[in-house]
Amino acid sequence: MWTKLKKLQNVDDYNKFLDSFETFLFDCDGVLWHGNTLLPRTRETLDLLKKRGKRIIFVTNNSSKSRKSYKKKLESHEIPAEEDEIFGSAYAAAVYLKQVVKFPSEQKVYVVGEEGIEAELDAEGIAHCGGTDPNDRQPMTAEDFETFDQDPSIGAVLCGIDFHFNYLKLCKAFTYLQNSKTLFLLTNDDSTYPSHGKKFPGAGSISSSLTFSTGRTPKSLGKPYSTMMDCIEAKLKFDKEKAVFIGDRLDTDILFAKNSNIKSLLVLTGVSTEREILADDAKILPDFYINQIGDLYQVDDKGNV
Amino acid sequence: MWTKLKKLQNVDDYNKFLDSFETFLFDCDGVLWHGNTLLPRTRETLDLLKKRGKRIIFVTNNSSKSRKSYKKKLESHEIPAEEDEIFGSAYAAAVYLKQVVKFPSEQKVYVVGEEGIEAELDAEGIAHCGGTDPNDRQPMTAEDFETFDQDPSIGAVLCGIDFHFNYLKLCKAFTYLQNSKTLFLLTNDDSTYPSHGKKFPGAGSISSSLTFSTGRTPKSLGKPYSTMMDCIEAKLKFDKEKAVFIGDRLDTDILFAKNSNIKSLLVLTGVSTEREILADDAKILPDFYINQIGDLYQVDDKGNV
Repeated sequence: MWTKLKKLQNVDDYNKFLDSFETFLFDCDGVLWHGNTLLPRTRETLDLLKKRGKRIIFVTNNSSKSRKSYKKKLESHEIPAEEDEIFGSAYAAAVYLKQVVKFPSEQKVYVVGEEGIEAELDAEGIAHCGGTDPNDRQPMTAEDFETFDQDPSIGAVLCGIDFHFNYLKLCKAFTYLQNSKTLFLLTNDDSTYPSHGKKFPGAGSISSSLTFSTGRTPKSLGKPYSTMMDCIEAKLKFDKEKAVFIGDRLDTDILFAKNSNIKSLLVLTGVSTEREILADDAKILPDFYINQIGDLYQVDDKGNV
Repeated sequence: MWTKLKKLQNVDDYNKFLDSFETFLFDCDGVLWHGNTLLPRTRETLDLLKKRGKRIIFVTNNSSKSRKSYKKKLESHEIPAEEDEIFGSAYAAAVYLKQVVKFPSEQKVYVVGEEGIEAELDAEGIAHCGGTDPNDRQPMTAEDFETFDQDPSIGAVLCGIDFHFNYLKLCKAFTYLQNSKTLFLLTNDDSTYPSHGKKFPGAGSISSSLTFSTGRTPKSLGKPYSTMMDCIEAKLKFDKEKAVFIGDRLDTDILFAKNSNIKSLLVLTGVSTEREILADDAKILPDFYINQIGDLYQVDDKGNV
C-alpha cells in the first residue's frame, strides 16, 4: 500500500495509479485547461483512459455554463463528452430545488448569475427571474429606492458567478431575503474564479455581500459539499471504492473527495501548490499528487498501454 | 446621578439632560430624518439647543455625500450648518490618507464609491480614479479578463457605499489588492444603508465581497472606530466630559460614543429598538434613550427655555 500523499513521478507510479481505479472524476479548469488553453497532453491522457476502459466524469463548480455549454467547451478542445457525464454547480442547484426542496411551481427563483443557471432551471421546469434579464443589468435608480419591496412570488434567491453583478441585483436579492421563508442558495462558495490564467472574484465573493447584509448563510451546492456527489450518484452508478477525484484545489476538489469518501489526486497546474501540501500545518491532503495530468500519458510513450 | 440606561420621558428628564451637556454630536439618518422626511420637531429641537448656547456637530457614516453636499441637505431641511460642523466617513478617509498615511502624491486611490469620496479626496489634494468614472460603470468585457493586471500607480483601494457597484469594479479592486502594499480602506462597515425608511445593502456589504475574495481586512474609518473622533478633535475643540453622541444604532453610534469616551443617547426612530437594549444579553448600552429627538423640544412647550 502507498502511504498518504504519494507523488506520482514515474511510469510505474502512473501505471499502478491507473490500474487502481475504474472511474475518474475530473475538475476542469486548472486540471484540463487554463481558460481556452488546453494543458499539455490532456487530450492524450483522456484518450488513454478511454482506451483502458475507464469511465470519465467531469465535475465543475463553474455555474456560468450549463452542461450543454460545457459539452461544447469540451468538444472545442476535441474532448468528446456526453451531457450526462458532466456535472456543474448550476445543475446541482436546479436538481436540489426540484428533488429535495420540491420547489413550488407557482413560485420563482431570483437568479444572481449567468445563463448556465437559467438553462439548468429551465431544464428542471423551475420558473426564474433576474439572471440575464437586461432590466437587472441597469444601475439602481432613485425610483428603485422608493418602489423596492418584498415579492411573495419569489421563493428562493440562487446566487452564482455573475459577470454582470451590480448594486441593483444586490438590492433585489437583499430585499427578497428579508422574508425568512425565501431560500438562500449558492451554486458554490469559491472565493475566486479562474480565467485566462488569472484569478477573479468567485461566486462566494459575490454572495458574501448578501451574507454580510442579510446576516443569512446560503446553502452551498457545489464542491466541496455532498449535494454535488448526491447529484452524481443519483444519475450514474459507479463503485466509489474504485473512483478517484482529480482536481487542482485543496479546499474544493480534494475536500470534496474526502467528503464523498473517494480517493483524490491533486494536480499542480492550478490553485494549490506543492508547498501547501508539504507544509507542517496542512489540513487537507490528497491521496496522490502529480505535476500535471498529462504526465499520466507517459505510460503510453513507453508502450505500456 | 442617573444610573445607566435612563429613558428620558418627561420634561424634568429632558431639562436635566440638556443641562448636562455643552456639545451635542448628531448622527443624521434615523435621528434627524428618514431619507427626505424630517422627523417631528427636529428643527425645533435643534433651534432650542442653539438658543441654549449648545454646540451642534453632525457626524455621518454616509460616504456618498461630501460635507458640502451634506450642508446642502441640512439646509434643504432648513437646518443651518457650517461645513466644518459636519463630519462624514468620506472626509475621515481623506484626512486619514493625507495626515496619517501621508499618501504619496505620485500615487492614486482606486475608489469604489460615489461623488462624496471623490470630493473629499480632491479637497485634500489626493489623486484618485474609479469612483464615478463612466468607464467603470460598464459591464466586464471578455477583453477585460485578458488585459486586467496590477497597477503600481494605485497605492490604495478606498471602498464606500456605491450605488453603481458592479463586477468590473470588484475585479479591478480585487486585482489591485493582490499587491500587498496597496492599502485597503473602507469608509464605514455598516451592513445596511437606510433610505426611504427602508434598508439597503451598506458599504460594509460591498467591501465584504473584497474581503472574502482577497482574504484581506480593510481599515474602517467611520463610526464606530476612533479615527472618526480623531478627525473631529483635530478640527474642533470641545470638552468631551460635556459632550453627548445622539444616534439610532447601537453597533455604530453608541459603540462610537463608548470608543470615544463620551456619553450617548439612543433614539428609537431608527435601526435599534427598545427591545434590543432591554434584552438580558444586550452588549452595547447607551447612557440614555428617548423615543425621538423631537421629544426634547417639549421643554420649550412648557416655557422652560
